[in-house]
Amino acid sequence: MVKVGIIGYGTVGSGVFEVLDVNKESIAEKSGEEIQVKRICDLREFPGDKAEKLITHDFNDILKDSEISVVVETMGGTKPAYDFVKASIEAGKSVCTSNKELVATYGAGLIKLAKQHNVNFLFEASVGGGIPVIRPLNHALTAEKVVEIKGILNGTTNFILTKMSREGSDYATVLKEAQDMGYAEKNPTADVEGFDTCRKIAILTSLAYGKQVDYNDIQTEGITKITKEDMDYAKALDASIKLIGESKIEDGSVYARVAPALIGREQPLYSVHDVFNAIFIKGNMVDDVMFYGRGAGKLPTASAVVADIVDAVKNKDRHITTIWEEDKLKLGDIRQYKQRFFVRVPESDKQDAKNSFSECEEVKTEKVKGEFAFITAPMSENEFDDVVKGLNVINRIIVNF
Amino acid sequence: MVKVGIIGYGTVGSGVFEVLDVNKESIAEKSGEEIQVKRICDLREFPGDKAEKLITHDFNDILKDSEISVVVETMGGTKPAYDFVKASIEAGKSVCTSNKELVATYGAGLIKLAKQHNVNFLFEASVGGGIPVIRPLNHALTAEKVVEIKGILNGTTNFILTKMSREGSDYATVLKEAQDMGYAEKNPTADVEGFDTCRKIAILTSLAYGKQVDYNDIQTEGITKITKEDMDYAKALDASIKLIGESKIEDGSVYARVAPALIGREQPLYSVHDVFNAIFIKGNMVDDVMFYGRGAGKLPTASAVVADIVDAVKNKDRHITTIWEEDKLKLGDIRQYKQRFFVRVPESDKQDAKNSFSECEEVKTEKVKGEFAFITAPMSENEFDDVVKGLNVINRIIVNF
Repeated sequence: MVKVGIIGYGTVGSGVFEVLDVNKESIAEKSGEEIQVKRICDLREFPGDKAEKLITHDFNDILKDSEISVVVETMGGTKPAYDFVKASIEAGKSVCTSNKELVATYGAGLIKLAKQHNVNFLFEASVGGGIPVIRPLNHALTAEKVVEIKGILNGTTNFILTKMSREGSDYATVLKEAQDMGYAEKNPTADVEGFDTCRKIAILTSLAYGKQVDYNDIQTEGITKITKEDMDYAKALDASIKLIGESKIEDGSVYARVAPALIGREQPLYSVHDVFNAIFIKGNMVDDVMFYGRGAGKLPTASAVVADIVDAVKNKDRHITTIWEEDKLKLGDIRQYKQRFFVRVPESDKQDAKNSFSECEEVKTEKVKGEFAFITAPMSENEFDDVVKGLNVINRIIVNF
Repeated sequence: MVKVGIIGYGTVGSGVFEVLDVNKESIAEKSGEEIQVKRICDLREFPGDKAEKLITHDFNDILKDSEISVVVETMGGTKPAYDFVKASIEAGKSVCTSNKELVATYGAGLIKLAKQHNVNFLFEASVGGGIPVIRPLNHALTAEKVVEIKGILNGTTNFILTKMSREGSDYATVLKEAQDMGYAEKNPTADVEGFDTCRKIAILTSLAYGKQVDYNDIQTEGITKITKEDMDYAKALDASIKLIGESKIEDGSVYARVAPALIGREQPLYSVHDVFNAIFIKGNMVDDVMFYGRGAGKLPTASAVVADIVDAVKNKDRHITTIWEEDKLKLGDIRQYKQRFFVRVPESDKQDAKNSFSECEEVKTEKVKGEFAFITAPMSENEFDDVVKGLNVINRIIVNF
């Protein structure tokens, strides 16, 4: 019998309790041992909850309990999560977390610490919710050199963009609806400005190249400037607009970015709708693979945490190797990276635009009047900013096809 | 340094040699040891090949070599593959195979034997080529009870169906083109009659429920009866026709089947085109996940075999648990399972059809004349066969949306 302590009894934490309860027998069979939650640390009380009697307000009730060998951290943020996780590992307990902020910031150090203490620090749920992606990247695609990662990593923004595209509504209207339906938070900044996606692509890129990517180094643009007119043009191009977290290696440099992008119909990410997430990975041998599923939500995310608990139980007294060193991975300058841009200017700027962007390709839709829209030849952002000077740009979006 | 022996230097076997060569350093880092191919057993000679000097015609040169700790079996078929694999495991070597016939037939027994000898029998490449699906099912979705598996598991048939749909060509024409392009074999029976898909869904279903599924028990229908008219109707329905291998659990019974099916646009399998494969899995907690990629081809398949070699090296003297017992899983009677059917009859049978299938829903396309096509209410195949008596059915396809 393995005893587990949970820190943070919110959505994911209570989901972990539920998954361990509902699938108890099959989980015991797969782990080789029964798994039981012994204590749950949360500042709140939960009268009437199934786990009511397990609640403590004192983290020491978990830390000092030598029977508890696995700690689940589902509180979020880095303070005090980092201190709790560190103390747990130092006390010889394995830790399973869904906390992307913690993993993106302290991942390499916590893996090293876990190795020193011969326990495990596992974080499948920190990216892609219930989608197995950390484990495939670490343990399945081991024959590969990763060439490119491209993901729809945030359910809230994908829900908003899907709804804008389907209904022809504008951003503000759909955000309000998403908030009313509980798909977006009251303060949606972390999602809509791309910060959440940024943490997640930082984690995936760190794992792909084995070094620490500082998420502050990743140029991040959210979806707040996307309009219904952009969606009309996207349809005319047989493309969809998605918030993409991506990284790729070219000539030995790793480039990373978060930005909305036009995704063509032939790409598998094109048809990832609503709150679904998907992570597309290109390896130098396997070529394209993609992992798809629910990137958030109580039970899917909890399912990933529980899979980590099962791994921790199966690998007692044995550290599972994860190659992610503390050395910083210096990213290439994304502003030098060449891609095509979709650009909208007022019709009055048409001739100027054609003069500035000599190879531009016009994009037309019946639904938008008074504008000239086009796709540029491949160029860097620095080059683009130079050439675009003097034009009144209504919007510009990266073309990812 | 770990020494590997390869049996069968065909497409996949030579791919394994190439992947181990090209990604040598990164594979050594991930395994913790350098991996080197020492001998390759094949009846042919390979003059001028990089591996020329490693070739032997005698399997004993691998079996009796105590330096070789991992054997790769990429010869296909069960005879003599089974004897070679069994002997290798009994000699204390781990075996990694891409051979779906071997795994579907002898999987449970070989896993048991590997456990007894404290080595590993790994077979990621036997389903889905380069797509990690065996490992996620075994080691990532461990918190789940699998409710449903639905896969496009054969690249040849998906290529043919995609081309028929895009070009409006008939089956025979496209098959011929696929053969000329090397995407279909001269004798395409195993692919187009669904036998290959059948082996693969048998393996996935065995792993999902932990017992041996006999692939002979799975009702299997290929794509040879699909016509360009069916494709026209599919488009009118906003659906695509895919060869689907599927299994699901209902009221405690597991049902499995291979058959072409109409897949609606909202399903992620809808947009899996050309030679790509995808496996959709529904768990009771995580809901829908899907794994997508190249289901065949030299390097993708070899990449999956090499990932198994890495796992075998990382788990020396330690058997990785795979729950797949030899007890037979008795499947439910698929002919009792209820679904909707798409049916085409001559226009002259219209009134009879409407009388027989009272709840039918007409399907119209401008492109096909002189027919009456409809979708039935949910019913079993037994019920369908009863009701349809007396009608001249042109074709009937399962509706999977």
